[in-house]
Amino acid sequence: MKGDVRVLPLGGIPELEEEDDLGALLVEAAERAGGFEPNDVLVVAQKAVSKVEGRVVHLDRIEPSARARELAGDEDARRIEVILAESREILRARPPLVIAETRHGFVCASAGVDASNAKGAGTLVLLPLDPDASARRLRDRIRDLRDLELGVIVSDSFGRAWRRGTTDVALGVAGLSPLLDLKGTRDSAGYELHATEIAVADEVAGAAELVMGKIDGVPAAIVRGLELAGEGSGLDLLMPRERDLFR
Amino acid sequence: MKGDVRVLPLGGIPELEEEDDLGALLVEAAERAGGFEPNDVLVVAQKAVSKVEGRVVHLDRIEPSARARELAGDEDARRIEVILAESREILRARPPLVIAETRHGFVCASAGVDASNAKGAGTLVLLPLDPDASARRLRDRIRDLRDLELGVIVSDSFGRAWRRGTTDVALGVAGLSPLLDLKGTRDSAGYELHATEIAVADEVAGAAELVMGKIDGVPAAIVRGLELAGEGSGLDLLMPRERDLFR
Repeated sequence: MKGDVRVLPLGGIPELEEEDDLGALLVEAAERAGGFEPNDVLVVAQKAVSKVEGRVVHLDRIEPSARARELAGDEDARRIEVILAESREILRARPPLVIAETRHGFVCASAGVDASNAKGAGTLVLLPLDPDASARRLRDRIRDLRDLELGVIVSDSFGRAWRRGTTDVALGVAGLSPLLDLKGTRDSAGYELHATEIAVADEVAGAAELVMGKIDGVPAAIVRGLELAGEGSGLDLLMPRERDLFR
Repeated sequence: MKGDVRVLPLGGIPELEEEDDLGALLVEAAERAGGFEPNDVLVVAQKAVSKVEGRVVHLDRIEPSARARELAGDEDARRIEVILAESREILRARPPLVIAETRHGFVCASAGVDASNAKGAGTLVLLPLDPDASARRLRDRIRDLRDLELGVIVSDSFGRAWRRGTTDVALGVAGLSPLLDLKGTRDSAGYELHATEIAVADEVAGAAELVMGKIDGVPAAIVRGLELAGEGSGLDLLMPRERDLFR
């Protein structure tokens, strides 16, 4: 039997700006919460990561294209222009809702472009250019500061097909394996399980969201009690196009 | 700031059969884990619920239709026949993979029909007829036994469009509100959040899966530290057909 899992909010992080030392801020927040422990998974909201990486655009510098104006309807066409620039493909558009595949390969609303909670009006926050690299940088920085080997997940809130509401999922990972493959494993009745691959990194991101919330300055959480050691990429969680039934 | 969330596995539950008193077994398991506390959410795997409700079919009593044989390809057409009987609509079929909308309205692989872990060979486990009613019965039974008001979630592992791996989601709920609506809420910069509805019951189900696993006789978990009080239905988590862009 696996043991308990604990999810601890990391709060008291100030409003973030480009080039802030997020790793150091998270170490301080963790120490206020009792400190990191070995095998902890640190989950950090994409928006916090994007801000320190300077992935913020100012709407007043955006000139919308004709296609953006057409898709925008009554919405701000500059925002649609930014979404188009972040997208590899638009899957569905019903203004103001646009479902896009990002340049990384994530399928989500607005290609992950988000207006809420950006510092100052008229700015948009984009996804990190390489969320795995963002996770690795945080992992490396924390190792440098405290000689700790953490798993790190950069998370974001995604909608889902057929279901209402968002759940947080893993965009980038470092120091952990995002999928748990049960193929070849036998269940308690002795039957081999098949088609059983669990997206543990997404479940961990969702568990972290339960304490992070959206409005209270808690951009990160520790998930403790799992053993997800291994290596992998947030892109491992993307359904390969040839296996995707919903394009 | 919200506090910590804990996820506790409820183990030592024996192999279940129809008419077993699952509520009493879960109370005993919870007491081995220190007992339930007020506001606990009890997450129970659908398969455990379905077994005690007798939602099990024997393949040798199934006569496949022509349509089932056609969809089955090299697979067992009797299994496809059971899936068709559970389905309102088949969304995609690429044998052996069938994505269906169940009679309840859930969109998932095989209409939730599952072969693995069923007691004895040649049996399939179906989803509960009314997962909310299943959750309510467990909630009522535990109230009768211990005078406790729990939230209850009946969960299952669903695949997702565009992403690999399953995550556990809520099929039925009792004594809690499955969606957290942030409309009208302002973020830390004072902007109103929009399009922000969090599927907390799905995130709670996913968090529970992290300790339940698939193979070790842990069909339930307690998620402690949340305040999800309210009322609702697992069907609240279904995207209304007219808003669904992925049919």
